[in-house]
Amino acid sequence: MLIFLEPHITPDQRRALDNAVRGAGCTTTETPTPYGPFLVVEGDLDRLRQLPLSVFGGVRKTVALSKPYRLHSREHQADPTVVKLGDVSIGGGGFTVIGGPCAVEDDATLLETAQAVKNAGGHMLRGGAYKPRTSPYSFRGLGLDGLRMLRDVGQQVGLPTVSEVCDPRHIEACMSNVDMLQIGTRNMSNFDLLIEVGKSGHPVLLKRGRSATIDDWLNAAEYILAQGNMDVVLCERGIRGFDPATRNTLDIAAIPAVRERSHLPILIDPSHATGHPAYVPPMAKAACAAGADGVIVEMHVRPETALSDAEQAMLPEEFRDLCEDLRLLASVRSSRRL
Amino acid sequence: MLIFLEPHITPDQRRALDNAVRGAGCTTTETPTPYGPFLVVEGDLDRLRQLPLSVFGGVRKTVALSKPYRLHSREHQADPTVVKLGDVSIGGGGFTVIGGPCAVEDDATLLETAQAVKNAGGHMLRGGAYKPRTSPYSFRGLGLDGLRMLRDVGQQVGLPTVSEVCDPRHIEACMSNVDMLQIGTRNMSNFDLLIEVGKSGHPVLLKRGRSATIDDWLNAAEYILAQGNMDVVLCERGIRGFDPATRNTLDIAAIPAVRERSHLPILIDPSHATGHPAYVPPMAKAACAAGADGVIVEMHVRPETALSDAEQAMLPEEFRDLCEDLRLLASVRSSRRL
Amino acid sequence: MLIFLEPHITPDQRRALDNAVRGAGCTTTETPTPYGPFLVVEGDLDRLRQLPLSVFGGVRKTVALSKPYRLHSREHQADPTVVKLGDVSIGGGGFTVIGGPCAVEDDATLLETAQAVKNAGGHMLRGGAYKPRTSPYSFRGLGLDGLRMLRDVGQQVGLPTVSEVCDPRHIEACMSNVDMLQIGTRNMSNFDLLIEVGKSGHPVLLKRGRSATIDDWLNAAEYILAQGNMDVVLCERGIRGFDPATRNTLDIAAIPAVRERSHLPILIDPSHATGHPAYVPPMAKAACAAGADGVIVEMHVRPETALSDAEQAMLPEEFRDLCEDLRLLASVRSSRRL
Amino acid sequence: MLIFLEPHITPDQRRALDNAVRGAGCTTTETPTPYGPFLVVEGDLDRLRQLPLSVFGGVRKTVALSKPYRLHSREHQADPTVVKLGDVSIGGGGFTVIGGPCAVEDDATLLETAQAVKNAGGHMLRGGAYKPRTSPYSFRGLGLDGLRMLRDVGQQVGLPTVSEVCDPRHIEACMSNVDMLQIGTRNMSNFDLLIEVGKSGHPVLLKRGRSATIDDWLNAAEYILAQGNMDVVLCERGIRGFDPATRNTLDIAAIPAVRERSHLPILIDPSHATGHPAYVPPMAKAACAAGADGVIVEMHVRPETALSDAEQAMLPEEFRDLCEDLRLLASVRSSRRL
Repeated sequence: MLIFLEPHITPDQRRALDNAVRGAGCTTTETPTPYGPFLVVEGDLDRLRQLPLSVFGGVRKTVALSKPYRLHSREHQADPTVVKLGDVSIGGGGFTVIGGPCAVEDDATLLETAQAVKNAGGHMLRGGAYKPRTSPYSFRGLGLDGLRMLRDVGQQVGLPTVSEVCDPRHIEACMSNVDMLQIGTRNMSNFDLLIEVGKSGHPVLLKRGRSATIDDWLNAAEYILAQGNMDVVLCERGIRGFDPATRNTLDIAAIPAVRERSHLPILIDPSHATGHPAYVPPMAKAACAAGADGVIVEMHVRPETALSDAEQAMLPEEFRDLCEDLRLLASVRSSRRL
Repeated sequence: MLIFLEPHITPDQRRALDNAVRGAGCTTTETPTPYGPFLVVEGDLDRLRQLPLSVFGGVRKTVALSKPYRLHSREHQADPTVVKLGDVSIGGGGFTVIGGPCAVEDDATLLETAQAVKNAGGHMLRGGAYKPRTSPYSFRGLGLDGLRMLRDVGQQVGLPTVSEVCDPRHIEACMSNVDMLQIGTRNMSNFDLLIEVGKSGHPVLLKRGRSATIDDWLNAAEYILAQGNMDVVLCERGIRGFDPATRNTLDIAAIPAVRERSHLPILIDPSHATGHPAYVPPMAKAACAAGADGVIVEMHVRPETALSDAEQAMLPEEFRDLCEDLRLLASVRSSRRL
Repeated sequence: MLIFLEPHITPDQRRALDNAVRGAGCTTTETPTPYGPFLVVEGDLDRLRQLPLSVFGGVRKTVALSKPYRLHSREHQADPTVVKLGDVSIGGGGFTVIGGPCAVEDDATLLETAQAVKNAGGHMLRGGAYKPRTSPYSFRGLGLDGLRMLRDVGQQVGLPTVSEVCDPRHIEACMSNVDMLQIGTRNMSNFDLLIEVGKSGHPVLLKRGRSATIDDWLNAAEYILAQGNMDVVLCERGIRGFDPATRNTLDIAAIPAVRERSHLPILIDPSHATGHPAYVPPMAKAACAAGADGVIVEMHVRPETALSDAEQAMLPEEFRDLCEDLRLLASVRSSRRL
Repeated sequence: MLIFLEPHITPDQRRALDNAVRGAGCTTTETPTPYGPFLVVEGDLDRLRQLPLSVFGGVRKTVALSKPYRLHSREHQADPTVVKLGDVSIGGGGFTVIGGPCAVEDDATLLETAQAVKNAGGHMLRGGAYKPRTSPYSFRGLGLDGLRMLRDVGQQVGLPTVSEVCDPRHIEACMSNVDMLQIGTRNMSNFDLLIEVGKSGHPVLLKRGRSATIDDWLNAAEYILAQGNMDVVLCERGIRGFDPATRNTLDIAAIPAVRERSHLPILIDPSHATGHPAYVPPMAKAACAAGADGVIVEMHVRPETALSDAEQAMLPEEFRDLCEDLRLLASVRSSRRL
């Protein structure tokens, strides 16, 4: 790190700065330039970064020459992370399709939906049991009963399952019933929850917060990784935008931006991103062409009976056609290394 | 509610619609217009609203003529809510100033800060014990020890206290040590947490989520109110914007927008909104002139030793001058009913 | 259109409303409902829409049942518009690649670049002669000389050309030198300019404004179409977002959203959208897979000598590889109707 | 400026860099550090800034130690600019209120409105003659006739006038009829227009673009200043936000952010910012308390006959009450130096 000093830094200011830097386990070498003196700082830069250097008197500017060490980074791990859920892999070159209803509603509907996912060639089953809803008076999910339905149906049909967890007190129940824990967009910065799913060691699908930058999101993943749980899959699901034409703004460039920074796999959720079933196929194909590791898509066998997000659910036959297109695209992608 | 039908709605579609509407406890009357037939729907509209009418075949458009019933609304309660914390009131015409450090760091610093708040005429003491931080490697607060320091210092100096709670498992400890529970911006949509602070019956300061609309925010408040806890104070702290000139974008128009919709008090947090101590006084004065019920401001006796958000903390003398200006403005405001 | 009345509308208010509606060439039929009376309005709805009905006393709500007539809409023209520039077509199922430098700099460099575009299989040549730049002290283009170079090089290499026009007084010079006039993002709402390029009858590439909704953008296109010029191609180039990871936020869902509303072709500009050459190929492929009609990409033979936007320019060999990938994707797309 | 080099920069890369830096009239001194060598660059930094140093091979990072010279900056001029329009001053401590209709509609209505502005104590009259409208089929203003009405009414009532200019070809007509030229939000980056109003020497009111950062906006002002026209007043009118509760998001923190960077006066337009007349008074008072130099407010004597933006117009009696409140606030502000 470099610290540029004001030309007129006082001896008291200089002493306070030196003490703080030394206190953080660092040493400095001063170099004069025509623009004023600056200090080259060496030592425990991670501790130094905790200091609010910019509020010290006499400091003009600090320049970081290195990035802090992060488990999510390409510098830490060059090879892509592959998360395994039974026979299914996410990351590493394949393209994983997760389908299912927004919310688990009843045994029969879930089974019918899961069979449609399986028949279409989908790889995993999604379904919410604990549903965060904008209004407290909306359907908030079946809770534990929903988790059990998901487990039973997943096993019956032969699809690994993923479901959202919102409360640290529900993690154990989720872990014992589903194969992957989803952290939703509303809880991306619920750090206590992230730490607990990190400790659980269970695979995690981490959705991006609606107003989170890529770096905010990777730091949220870091909360999980720092607990020793490396099975983290990122999921871009649209960020807050200004155009009501879509429910959110799908930040498709998050795919290359994440790839450049991190070894973690990244999925796209075109259903929440757009809010329109007709926009889901083009966005899912865009995700594949742009190099995503998969998609997670909402599908319902009878949307008019759905208890949540009916407007954005695809029908089974639409889902089947999409899966076929995605298989073709993914095979072109892998054969030609698009 | 009105439902406009497609001119060519099939008998099957019509039957499915009628069944669903009847199933929701409503009746319909059909009226022809030159634009096609429409149904006037009466009955249990709250149940009807749960139906995804837009995905029913043959439905062209639905028009809501009334808003759903909400505890936060002016329709429910015309008079402003006043939240009392000992001798301090928030809402109802006064202007409440809350000051203190971002994070509780140690006894002596907290006491010095609290005395500065008290001497400046501040009404409440803020301080974080559980700190949500972007990076898992940053200082995350003293936890229970911090809460106890806050309680002791608050009592010693004579200021009610407010501190953030992020995890349902910490609510009890927070309640027994501080006078008001803060829900931070990152947890505005952590609905399990909102329900628990609702059940606690303790006064709540609910910050707006960074990407929350006013309506999202009022619905988050509704989660607390629906538990029977009416002591909710809203706090606008800046929303996600595109200009790096400020840390967030202070949505000052949230003040009249909330006033129009709700009886709940509203504070402004100019420190997190702007991220620059020099911008805090003009924004705090703007809040007062625009009719806010108060401000919550970060202040530190020695920012260069602060463990969190040092860059945005005011110094005690700046805080004192600001309090003086705000008293003058508030008195002009109340005498002339500005 | 429907107008819902307040139950307590006064006779004076009612008379004022009736007069205004009649004055706009419309008639009303009143229908009582349990929610209060409403008026079904028939007649010249386009004139009625000009009235500020919501500010009339006694009016509770208005409901539009039809959209205003627009030339850009699918309702006006179901078949896709195809814009022809010599042998090149934009729209109608093909995938058009436009390449070239941000700014025209000199004859030799432009020729070298144009040959690289041609050799890679690109279809058109782009290059700025009038450059809108954030700072008035940056290089602002060669003006008329630049246009002439573009014309000469385009003819020599055999590529139609497109260049930006920012000022109504330059349209004639642009028309006589380039094949397509570009309206840049900063001028999307420069309506006087739009009207003039509309009158010119020359093909237009209309970039989306940085804060324009899809509907704002289509209304901007309408300014051109309303002059009788139907040769309009839309171009999404990223909207203002909050994440500095990319220069703008590529709104990839604009592709299906435009398709649903309009018959006009749509291109993607991944260079301005992301600002990183490494992100351009995945975004260009995403555009193709999502159904765009083409891309416009910045390429420079020696970025370190570029006078504008050097940071986002691809190298010729990168551009060539991208073109090859896009041809493959486009052929898969058309054979399988992806 | 500092340039950090890659440790493994090749001799060819180094030579290319040295040549480019020298070619820009600068010299370098190399200094080794434990983080690798860096170059201290001196000389014509304004030319150096034009070079795309980040795309040079072997360059790791560049660090600017100074800001480029700008006429709008506090460094260029410490004292606030005061723009004079007859007896009216904008900037320098007073608080200027501009009122009037969105669009000039007819002589009689404009006169009635202007008298209401004058009687309320307003200082200037606004009114649009060339109206940029989202739809090409909306009322677009009376053009030259509107300008003449504005001139006549302004003179009759004794109020200086301001009106928008959108097209370089209209500047002369505007100059000869109104006292101040407004550049609207849609044309903030219409640089050819900015240059022409700069050359005109006439006072300019420069609204902020809807997606412009503070720095973008000040650079737009620089286009005018660079022509020798120093009579520029900035106007914040709301930026694009995601919450439909207000038409735009009023960025009230633009007031201190502009003050810190620039000597130019800044007004607030609460009418366009919020779109609700009921929100205009609190936002205007907030602007005053936060230190703005004035406000520009839409007022109409009969909103139900307005041809543009009727929904956001205040009534004359509301405007009069607001002016009274603002005078009180401004006097408190100046007496106590709030």
